[in-house]
Amino acid sequence: MTEVLEKDLACFHGTLAAAEKYAHAAAVLSYDQETICPEKAMEEQGEVGAMLQTEAFRLIKGEAFISALKNLHGHTDELDEFDAAAVEKHYRSFEKTANITPEMNHEFALVYNRAFVNWLEAKNKADFSVFAPSLKEVRDIEIRKVGLRDSRMDNIYDNLLDDYEKGMTTGILDETFSRCAARLRPLLKKIMSGGKEIRTDFLSRPVSDAQQAEMARYLMEVLKYDFSRGAFTTTEHPFTSKLGRNDIRITTHYHADSFASSMYSIIHESGHALFEMLSPSENDDHHLDGKTMGQHESVSRFYENRIGRSEAFIHLIYPKTCEIFPQVMHDVSEREFYEAMNLVTPSLIRTEADEFTYTFHIIIRYEIEKLILSGEAAIEDLPRIWNDKYEEYLGIRPENDREGVLQDTHWTFGFGYFPTYALGNMYNAMYFHRMEKDLDIDALVRAGDFDAVNGWMKENVFKKADRLDPGAWLREITGKEFAPDDFLDYLEEKYSALYGL
Amino acid sequence: MTEVLEKDLACFHGTLAAAEKYAHAAAVLSYDQETICPEKAMEEQGEVGAMLQTEAFRLIKGEAFISALKNLHGHTDELDEFDAAAVEKHYRSFEKTANITPEMNHEFALVYNRAFVNWLEAKNKADFSVFAPSLKEVRDIEIRKVGLRDSRMDNIYDNLLDDYEKGMTTGILDETFSRCAARLRPLLKKIMSGGKEIRTDFLSRPVSDAQQAEMARYLMEVLKYDFSRGAFTTTEHPFTSKLGRNDIRITTHYHADSFASSMYSIIHESGHALFEMLSPSENDDHHLDGKTMGQHESVSRFYENRIGRSEAFIHLIYPKTCEIFPQVMHDVSEREFYEAMNLVTPSLIRTEADEFTYTFHIIIRYEIEKLILSGEAAIEDLPRIWNDKYEEYLGIRPENDREGVLQDTHWTFGFGYFPTYALGNMYNAMYFHRMEKDLDIDALVRAGDFDAVNGWMKENVFKKADRLDPGAWLREITGKEFAPDDFLDYLEEKYSALYGL
Repeated sequence: MTEVLEKDLACFHGTLAAAEKYAHAAAVLSYDQETICPEKAMEEQGEVGAMLQTEAFRLIKGEAFISALKNLHGHTDELDEFDAAAVEKHYRSFEKTANITPEMNHEFALVYNRAFVNWLEAKNKADFSVFAPSLKEVRDIEIRKVGLRDSRMDNIYDNLLDDYEKGMTTGILDETFSRCAARLRPLLKKIMSGGKEIRTDFLSRPVSDAQQAEMARYLMEVLKYDFSRGAFTTTEHPFTSKLGRNDIRITTHYHADSFASSMYSIIHESGHALFEMLSPSENDDHHLDGKTMGQHESVSRFYENRIGRSEAFIHLIYPKTCEIFPQVMHDVSEREFYEAMNLVTPSLIRTEADEFTYTFHIIIRYEIEKLILSGEAAIEDLPRIWNDKYEEYLGIRPENDREGVLQDTHWTFGFGYFPTYALGNMYNAMYFHRMEKDLDIDALVRAGDFDAVNGWMKENVFKKADRLDPGAWLREITGKEFAPDDFLDYLEEKYSALYGL
Repeated sequence: MTEVLEKDLACFHGTLAAAEKYAHAAAVLSYDQETICPEKAMEEQGEVGAMLQTEAFRLIKGEAFISALKNLHGHTDELDEFDAAAVEKHYRSFEKTANITPEMNHEFALVYNRAFVNWLEAKNKADFSVFAPSLKEVRDIEIRKVGLRDSRMDNIYDNLLDDYEKGMTTGILDETFSRCAARLRPLLKKIMSGGKEIRTDFLSRPVSDAQQAEMARYLMEVLKYDFSRGAFTTTEHPFTSKLGRNDIRITTHYHADSFASSMYSIIHESGHALFEMLSPSENDDHHLDGKTMGQHESVSRFYENRIGRSEAFIHLIYPKTCEIFPQVMHDVSEREFYEAMNLVTPSLIRTEADEFTYTFHIIIRYEIEKLILSGEAAIEDLPRIWNDKYEEYLGIRPENDREGVLQDTHWTFGFGYFPTYALGNMYNAMYFHRMEKDLDIDALVRAGDFDAVNGWMKENVFKKADRLDPGAWLREITGKEFAPDDFLDYLEEKYSALYGL
C-alpha cells in the first residue's frame, strides 16, 4: 500500500472512530427517550440528540475525510476485505448525502424528533390530527432529501427503499407482493372457513409482570443471549438497539392478558441481538456496520417463527412454560400450546400478528407509502385509507387511530422500512433450506442446543452480512436469486397441515 | 449596558448553552451507566462520556468565552442579579481550572471512570485491593489539580472542601465535629444503656418489590414530586440526577427484609428533586446552577428526617403503610411505627444509619480524608484504619470491605464531599427554627399539605440558593452565622424524649 493510501486509511478510521463516539452518545439518549425519559424532557433531550448526530455528521463531511474516502474508493483492490467493504458502504452514503450540509442534517434531526414526540402524544390520544402536521414535514423532508441526490432513480420511493434495502425497488416489490397475495388470499379464506378448532381460551389467562419477566429471562438464556453485553427492560413497542460493540439491548412489553405476546417479542428481539453479538468483531474494528433491515428482520423472524413457533421449540419450552405460568398451563397439552402459538387470525396490530397474516400488514403499509410519496394520497386521508385497506385485505376495521394508522413509530423517521419486514421472512425461508441440509434442526432445537444453531447462523448467515448487499449475500448462502416462493411454500405446507386442508 | 458588554453577555450565554448540551448528554450517559448499562460496555461508554465532558470543557476554555467572562466579571454591577451571580460562579471555576487543559481534563475524566468501574468490581468482590490502584490515581489527580491553581490555600484538603462547600475549611470542621462528638458521644452511651425497649421485630418482615414500588409512588405523590418532569427507577445506591431543566430523576433500592430503607431513601431523594424542581426557572435561563452539596443535603435531610421521621408525618402515612404492607403492619401501632423509624443503633452502612448516629459516619470519613490528603495514611492501610475508627466511634467492626471502606462511591471522583452531608443536617436545623415561626408545621404535615410546606421552602430556602454562598444564604434565611448548636439541641431534645432520658 502506498504511503498516501495508508494516510488516507488512517484518516478514514480515525474520523469514523470519532464520529462513532457521537453516534454512541446519541444512541444512548435515544434509548433513554424510548425507555424512561420524562414527558416534559423529551423535546430538550431530542435537541441534544440532534446536536450529537450533527457533530457526527459534520465529521464525515470534513474535507480531509471526503478526500481520503474518494481516494480509497478508487483503490479498494489494495485494501483488505473489511476495509474494502467499509469504504464501499461509506462511499455510497457519502454519495447520497453529498449535498446535505450539517445544518440541513440538524434541521432534519429536529423534525424527526418533533415527529416522534407528536406521534407519541397522538397515539396516546388516539388522534391522528395531532401527528398529521409532523408527518407532512417528514414526507416533505424525505422528498427533499431524494431531490438533493446527484444520482438518483426516477421514482422517489425507489430511492428510499434502496436506503433500507440495497437494490430493492417498487418493481421487485410489486411483483413479490402480488405473488404473495395471489397465493395467500385463497389460503386464508380456506383457513378461516375450514372449521378447525384451535383452543384459545388459555391465551388470555392473566399472568403477572414478575412471571413474564421470569419467562423473558428463561427464553433469553435458552437462546444464549449474552447478558454481560446487553440489557433488558420494558417499553411499549419492543426493540433492539446496538449502543456499542458490547452493548446490544432489547426491550419487551408485558400484557397481563396476553402472555404469548411478550414471549415472541423476546424471541424476535433476541434474534436481532444475536445477529449483532455474533457478528465478526473485525467489523467493529473496521467501522463496518452494513446490515440491511431486511437482513436483520430475516434473522429476528428466523428465531421468532421458523424456530420459535416450530413443534421442536414448543417441545423444548413446554415444561418450563408450565412451571412459570401454572395458572395458565395447568390444563393445556403440548399440542394445544403448539397450535395456539400458530393460530391464524386476522388482527389489527402488526406487531401482534400471526406469521401467516403478517404479510398482509406489510402489503397494506407498502401500498400506502407508495400513495404518500407519489402524492396520490393526502396525509389527512390516511386514517380512512388505512382502515379501508384493513377491511379489504383482512376483513376487519380499526375502531380508532391508535389501533389503526398511529400504531407504528416508523413514519416519524421516514418511509421504506416496512417492506424489509416481509423480505426478512422470504430471506430466511431461502436459507432455512440450506441449513436443513447441514443440520438436523429439529433434533438440535428439541435438545436446546443453541450453540449449534447459532454457530451455523454465525458461520453462514452473520459472517458476511455486513460486507455483502442482500442479493449477493443470499447468493453466497443459498446459490439462488431472491424470490418469495420458498416462503410461500413453507406457509402453505405448514398451515395446510395445521388446519387439515 | 455598553455594546461591548452586551456582546460579552451574549457570548457568555451562548457558550454556556452549548456546553450545557454536552453536559446534558454526559449526564444521560452517566445515568445510564448507573442504572442499566451492561458490564462489558461500561468502559467504552465511560470513554464516550469523557469525550462529551471534554467538549463541554473545551467550550468554556475558549478565548472568546474567557475574555467575555473576565470583562463581565469587572462589571457585575451592571448585570441583573441572575447574570451577576452566574458570572461570579463561573469566574470562580475559571480561576480554579485556569491551568487545566482540555487534554488534562479528558485524562482526569478517564481516571474517574476507570475508578468507578474498578470500585464496582471491588465492592462486588468485597476486595479493596481491586480498587486501591485507582484510588491512588484519584488521590494523585486531586493533589495535582490543587497544585495547578494560581490562588490556593495551604492545606490541600481545604481546597477540595471549598469546591463542594464554598467557604468551608478544616478549621471550621475540626471545631464543628469536636463539638458534635463532645455532646453526642455521652448521649449515645445513655441511649444504649437506658433500657428503653423499641419494637424492631416487624422491620425485617418480608415485602415484595411490587409493594415497595407502590409505597415509593405513594410517598412521591404525598411530597408532590412532579412525575411529568422526572423518572424513577432502582439502583443499588439511590441518587438524584438533574439531566435537564425538566428532567430530575430519582432512584431507590428494594431490600425484601427492610422496607423502611427504601421508604426513607425515596423521601431523601425526593427532597433533592423538589429543590431542583422548585428552583426559579430564571436560574436555568441564566445558566446559574450554583447550589452547594451542603445546601442540597440540608434539603434532602429536611424532608427525610425533620419531616419524614416526625410524629406528624408518621401519623399522615400510617394508614397507607398499613394498607400497602398488611403483612408487616397488622399488629403495629402508630406509636410503635414512629419509634421504630427513629431507632438509634450503631451500624456499619452510612446510607442506612439513623439520624442520631449518622454524624459519626461522617466524622470517620472526614478524619480519613484528612489522613489521605496529608499523606499520613497509605491507601493500602485504609481498610484497617476504617475498621478501627468504626470500632472507636460506634463500637462495631465491619467484617469485610464491602460493608467497610468500599461501601461508598464518592472516592471514585474525589474527596471533600462527605462533610457536606453532616453540614446539611446543621443547616436545616437552623432554618427549621425560622419555619416554625412562620408555619404550624405539625398541623400542615398531619394534613398532608405539602403545597404549603414546599411553598415555604421555595420562597425561603430554594429561591436564592443558587445565587448565594452557604454562609450568606443561611444569614439571609436565619439572620445567624453557621453553627451546629441548633442541630445538637434538636437531637438532644428529640432523643431524650424518645428514650425517656
